[in-house]
Amino acid sequence: MSKNFQVQLASFPESIPRPNDFTLIETPIPDLSLDQVLCETLYLSLDPYMRSQIAGRHMSGSVGVNEPMIGETVSRVVMSESKDFKPGDIVRCFGGWQHFSAHNASALQMVADTIDPMSYALSILGMPGLTAYAGIIWQAKPKPGDVVVIPAAIGGVGATAGQLAKLQGCVVVGIAGSEEKCQYATEELSYDACINRKTENVSDRLKELCPDGINVFFDLVGGELLQTASEQLAIGARVILCGLMSEYNKSTRAAGPAPGLWIKARAIIYGLVVYDFEHRREEFLKNCIPYVTRGELKIREDVTMGLENAPESFCRLMRGDNFGKALVRVGT
Amino acid sequence: MSKNFQVQLASFPESIPRPNDFTLIETPIPDLSLDQVLCETLYLSLDPYMRSQIAGRHMSGSVGVNEPMIGETVSRVVMSESKDFKPGDIVRCFGGWQHFSAHNASALQMVADTIDPMSYALSILGMPGLTAYAGIIWQAKPKPGDVVVIPAAIGGVGATAGQLAKLQGCVVVGIAGSEEKCQYATEELSYDACINRKTENVSDRLKELCPDGINVFFDLVGGELLQTASEQLAIGARVILCGLMSEYNKSTRAAGPAPGLWIKARAIIYGLVVYDFEHRREEFLKNCIPYVTRGELKIREDVTMGLENAPESFCRLMRGDNFGKALVRVGT
Repeated sequence: MSKNFQVQLASFPESIPRPNDFTLIETPIPDLSLDQVLCETLYLSLDPYMRSQIAGRHMSGSVGVNEPMIGETVSRVVMSESKDFKPGDIVRCFGGWQHFSAHNASALQMVADTIDPMSYALSILGMPGLTAYAGIIWQAKPKPGDVVVIPAAIGGVGATAGQLAKLQGCVVVGIAGSEEKCQYATEELSYDACINRKTENVSDRLKELCPDGINVFFDLVGGELLQTASEQLAIGARVILCGLMSEYNKSTRAAGPAPGLWIKARAIIYGLVVYDFEHRREEFLKNCIPYVTRGELKIREDVTMGLENAPESFCRLMRGDNFGKALVRVGT
Repeated sequence: MSKNFQVQLASFPESIPRPNDFTLIETPIPDLSLDQVLCETLYLSLDPYMRSQIAGRHMSGSVGVNEPMIGETVSRVVMSESKDFKPGDIVRCFGGWQHFSAHNASALQMVADTIDPMSYALSILGMPGLTAYAGIIWQAKPKPGDVVVIPAAIGGVGATAGQLAKLQGCVVVGIAGSEEKCQYATEELSYDACINRKTENVSDRLKELCPDGINVFFDLVGGELLQTASEQLAIGARVILCGLMSEYNKSTRAAGPAPGLWIKARAIIYGLVVYDFEHRREEFLKNCIPYVTRGELKIREDVTMGLENAPESFCRLMRGDNFGKALVRVGT
């Protein structure tokens, strides 16, 4: 066990990345210092924010050419110089796009065996789930009957946000990029309706579906959909600014909606960064594991087999062609 | 007493209004129905939102050509068919730009004699003051040491907002349009600093004056200053969207800052409409009258004599050439 494979950035993509913007490199497995732990990646999470890291614009770090891609993983401890971890432990860490990663023990979190399957630690019971919970429950605080609109309705964050809103007694309207996704949203994820943004006029459909206006818009996309939703807010609406999917592949950042729209709605707009809620992760898990166990919170994982296929899977995600939370099964 | 004079809109201004966009008309004094009250205007408030009413874009109503201009007034009751008001009572109402106005009794509010001078019912202890109080105290909730930035620093709302923030122990930075206004802000209104937006680089000066970022931005202007401030927010900043002074004279509405700026700052953005806080006016007065009595809250009123001069005064306001809260002394 002396070889490691990792995916590095080969070139800065201009817009939507292509697989040959990445390259698979063989590197040595690092030696461990005291209190360090060697992990084998089992699942790698692929997320839209990685596009911003590549562009050097994300607060969580940036990736340069010939540098390994960053990413959160569920990993298995294979060697440990720390008293806190032993081989076989399943942990969550930022292992990156590679088979093996070394970490200080303090950078690892145990994955509780109540999280089953363990991949859920990267999806509905991981960062996407926590993001959805923070935005919907802690920030938007929806009341029964509130109309909640979720673009990217069946993605990692959106699917959880929509179901959480539904569990609060809200009317939940999704927006997604295909008929198949819309069908999944309404039939499996209990959305009340889902708008196909590629074939329907989103503004007109929102007017039909939300005649009294939108009470909560969980913004994962920015750009035109944020503008459209901001034009149709109900008085006292809450807008959660969380993601900019429509912007990540662009080299400049578009302006936001005219502030007058938000004044008119007396809206409250929250900037959401999930890292700020890390200290409340246990509370989130305590509340959500029972929902998952009872089948009231579901997630569809879009799992790609093999690290070598991670670049293609990431490019699909950035084209919006994934179906559910994008993960890569790396080790066995 | 059978004649009334009122100012009507004569033509829709394209950009900054000019005095000949208005005309002074003689009209009859209305007869009173049961429960109605006839009022003589003493003071008329001139406010930036009136520009939006002229453009037909304000939620409080619109003014068409050959229609009387709307405006809040302090008025004296001269005839009453209501048991609730008697001649001589001083009231607050939307008397408009005219000498006499008739109202249903339910549309009048008594001006308490603790409000002295009575013009304060239209400035620091009126709608501008309530706006400032709602934004700073109830929405932004500033903590001692917070850095609060107020554009339109010495206007009706801004001056009160800045002084209220100072009373909360904040560091208060103003932005104004002349050296004289800046000097007034720091010397009379206790601002810690004031940036002259016409002669200084606002972005650079904000960086110098707020090295750790802006905690509260009380937005009265929109446009470029909102963008500049949004680029320099501290983590957890609050932005109060309250006015769009930079936009009122334009025929289209500019886009807002890129949402990513607000995500990065984990900002909370509040759309503020003062009408929503009418039910808390007594609380506001109870808290602020003592400040005014003790000289801890000051206001400079820019009083124009005579209704016939209201159009010129309003145009000055829309050019930003007023010095303090714009009022018209109408009756004696």
